[in-house]
Amino acid sequence: MPRIYFDWAASAPCDPEAAETLSAALKRYAANPSSRHTSGKEARACLETCRNECADLLKTTPETVVFTSGGSESNNIVLTSFLTKRRQIHILSAPFEHPSVINPLFELKSSGHKVEFLKTTSEGVIDTDDLRRKLTPETALVCLMHTHNETGAVQPLSEAVQAVREFENGGKRIHFHCDAVQAGGKTAIDLTAADVDSASFSAHKFGGARGAGILFLKKPLQPLYLGGGQENGLRPGTENLPAVAAMTAALKNRNRCRDDETAAAREIRRKLTNAFSLRPEIVFPFPENGAEFSPYVMSIAVPGLPSEVAQRLFSDRGFDISSGSACSSNDAARKQKIKNPLGLPPRIAESVLRLSWGHTTSPSDADALINAFDEIIKEHHTLLRRSP
Amino acid sequence: MPRIYFDWAASAPCDPEAAETLSAALKRYAANPSSRHTSGKEARACLETCRNECADLLKTTPETVVFTSGGSESNNIVLTSFLTKRRQIHILSAPFEHPSVINPLFELKSSGHKVEFLKTTSEGVIDTDDLRRKLTPETALVCLMHTHNETGAVQPLSEAVQAVREFENGGKRIHFHCDAVQAGGKTAIDLTAADVDSASFSAHKFGGARGAGILFLKKPLQPLYLGGGQENGLRPGTENLPAVAAMTAALKNRNRCRDDETAAAREIRRKLTNAFSLRPEIVFPFPENGAEFSPYVMSIAVPGLPSEVAQRLFSDRGFDISSGSACSSNDAARKQKIKNPLGLPPRIAESVLRLSWGHTTSPSDADALINAFDEIIKEHHTLLRRSP
Repeated sequence: MPRIYFDWAASAPCDPEAAETLSAALKRYAANPSSRHTSGKEARACLETCRNECADLLKTTPETVVFTSGGSESNNIVLTSFLTKRRQIHILSAPFEHPSVINPLFELKSSGHKVEFLKTTSEGVIDTDDLRRKLTPETALVCLMHTHNETGAVQPLSEAVQAVREFENGGKRIHFHCDAVQAGGKTAIDLTAADVDSASFSAHKFGGARGAGILFLKKPLQPLYLGGGQENGLRPGTENLPAVAAMTAALKNRNRCRDDETAAAREIRRKLTNAFSLRPEIVFPFPENGAEFSPYVMSIAVPGLPSEVAQRLFSDRGFDISSGSACSSNDAARKQKIKNPLGLPPRIAESVLRLSWGHTTSPSDADALINAFDEIIKEHHTLLRRSP
Repeated sequence: MPRIYFDWAASAPCDPEAAETLSAALKRYAANPSSRHTSGKEARACLETCRNECADLLKTTPETVVFTSGGSESNNIVLTSFLTKRRQIHILSAPFEHPSVINPLFELKSSGHKVEFLKTTSEGVIDTDDLRRKLTPETALVCLMHTHNETGAVQPLSEAVQAVREFENGGKRIHFHCDAVQAGGKTAIDLTAADVDSASFSAHKFGGARGAGILFLKKPLQPLYLGGGQENGLRPGTENLPAVAAMTAALKNRNRCRDDETAAAREIRRKLTNAFSLRPEIVFPFPENGAEFSPYVMSIAVPGLPSEVAQRLFSDRGFDISSGSACSSNDAARKQKIKNPLGLPPRIAESVLRLSWGHTTSPSDADALINAFDEIIKEHHTLLRRSP
């Protein structure tokens, strides 16, 4: 039975074009881009062409584009660099960030820095008034993701950046880090206009191959992992040119097709939303009360049907859906004892499902998912009826 | 003009079989191995099969095999974990380690730990008597590479490990880390017998694709980069299954063909050594006085002809050779002010060339290299004659 994949936010299928680019680069560029002979220089030239293209696509300059192994590494490079600060700093962040932000933040906390989390609204976004209230002269770092990996909620990034810049009032700059992993490729991003200091992207979330990511970095910082000086000293290790070339191809594809792909994704979201609205068993944990949501991901909950059970039932019917994210924010929150990072009642939280799709998902895939849902509801109506 | 590649130690061409495995896995496993649906579980199963196979090939158990993005990351995970030690520790290492060891060691030094370097013999290996003398009750970490990336000198690893274990005398265990990046695949390695605590490997040095490496870790340690808990919490980020599958295929190939490949590599080393011994312009900076050298890499020097000039002259003739390593230990040593890490006189050090080859290098490639050398000597004899 061919499977229908609704877990693109965990990892997207590799674009055929990106896969071909990867294979070709693997064959064409055996040399190390840091080698100074002809083959090395050819590899270097290809790497720098990729950097220029990625910079163009993200509206920034090549020297701010650091190639990394992916989103988690990009987040860690930025956050762990603050471990070297001797003076205690104050850090503000959302409580629902990805584990590769949350866990390093708690590492910073245990090393003596002050980490504070912002209030969350019922739409699953941070309260920017709370951000304004919590900024202090000691605040040195603010972390806010672009699009939430489970709910799809688009955070009020520009408002938050503006609040931070206004607070600075021309004084010492506060580092604003944005985990843009779920937005990369799918959303038009202008890193210059965004006025953030750093941002993370991961190739395999937008059709590139695993093993490549981007760290946008306005100004160099002091990384903790060191080696041969690659990527301007910010990311040690032989540059993964084949994966970088594949990422660049995928990013170009997303950029070129963005309008069509976004429209198609919105149509799928609309279709799912409309159908699920009619099913009384389904709850939308994050109602779209005017907040902006990604067209590629949505959360639903089926109170009485635990996430893991529902995931298995869908899986048995050929659908790959997620019971949270693949590396769940909830796990990190639980580990770090952040209570209920998304502010959901327990009965909803334990039955949340994440559906995420991509540019090759068809409306008939969505129809099939809705049918599978109806079958599951029918078979398990006693379970659902029994629930209070 | 087709180029002849003598820079395998910087990066080896990807095995066609590994490249095919990569492409197939990229297509077959779109899902995140951490996802709990059927597709995720299939990806997880493939990842764990790779882990079992790599463990078998390296004579260890699967739970000690951590998949990383490569050698530099593997080294950094181990070394930076010691940054979290509050008590001052004593560290011993060779002065000629790879920059991804040397630079983190200096980071440890600036954070207050005591780092001491061992004496080097004229064969470019550490003096194990010096190691025995320098061990103290505060010594918590010893770093020694397996095979040197520039000279090919095989370090007296088992003697060094034995010295450390004897010093422990059943007491507190000293962590012994081995950067085995240049040995991985090429040399039969028995990690259980080696009795080291950690070891690093990089796929692209033995015919795998970039973006995968192994960290052998006898017991878990506290890593600095954190995220979604992948790889037993030791290496955050979505597991790079395609690259891991390619690495496993390459490691299997190396293991299966090791005897033949080693014999062929020895033949090339013998051919080059014999020819170069007859050229009075050439000096062997590390004479084989009974020390063991890798069959895949050798250093020569042409006093009077600076490395960078020679590299360019060879490159112009279609040969990719290295003027040191792609991420030179010398650069790291210079940066960290380690004087002359390999103990070479300046006139030799500035004219060192690294030649490295692999299993597809043919004896006629070596003949062509020798011819190119003779042409270069002929054309530049005035330069060489002028030198004192």
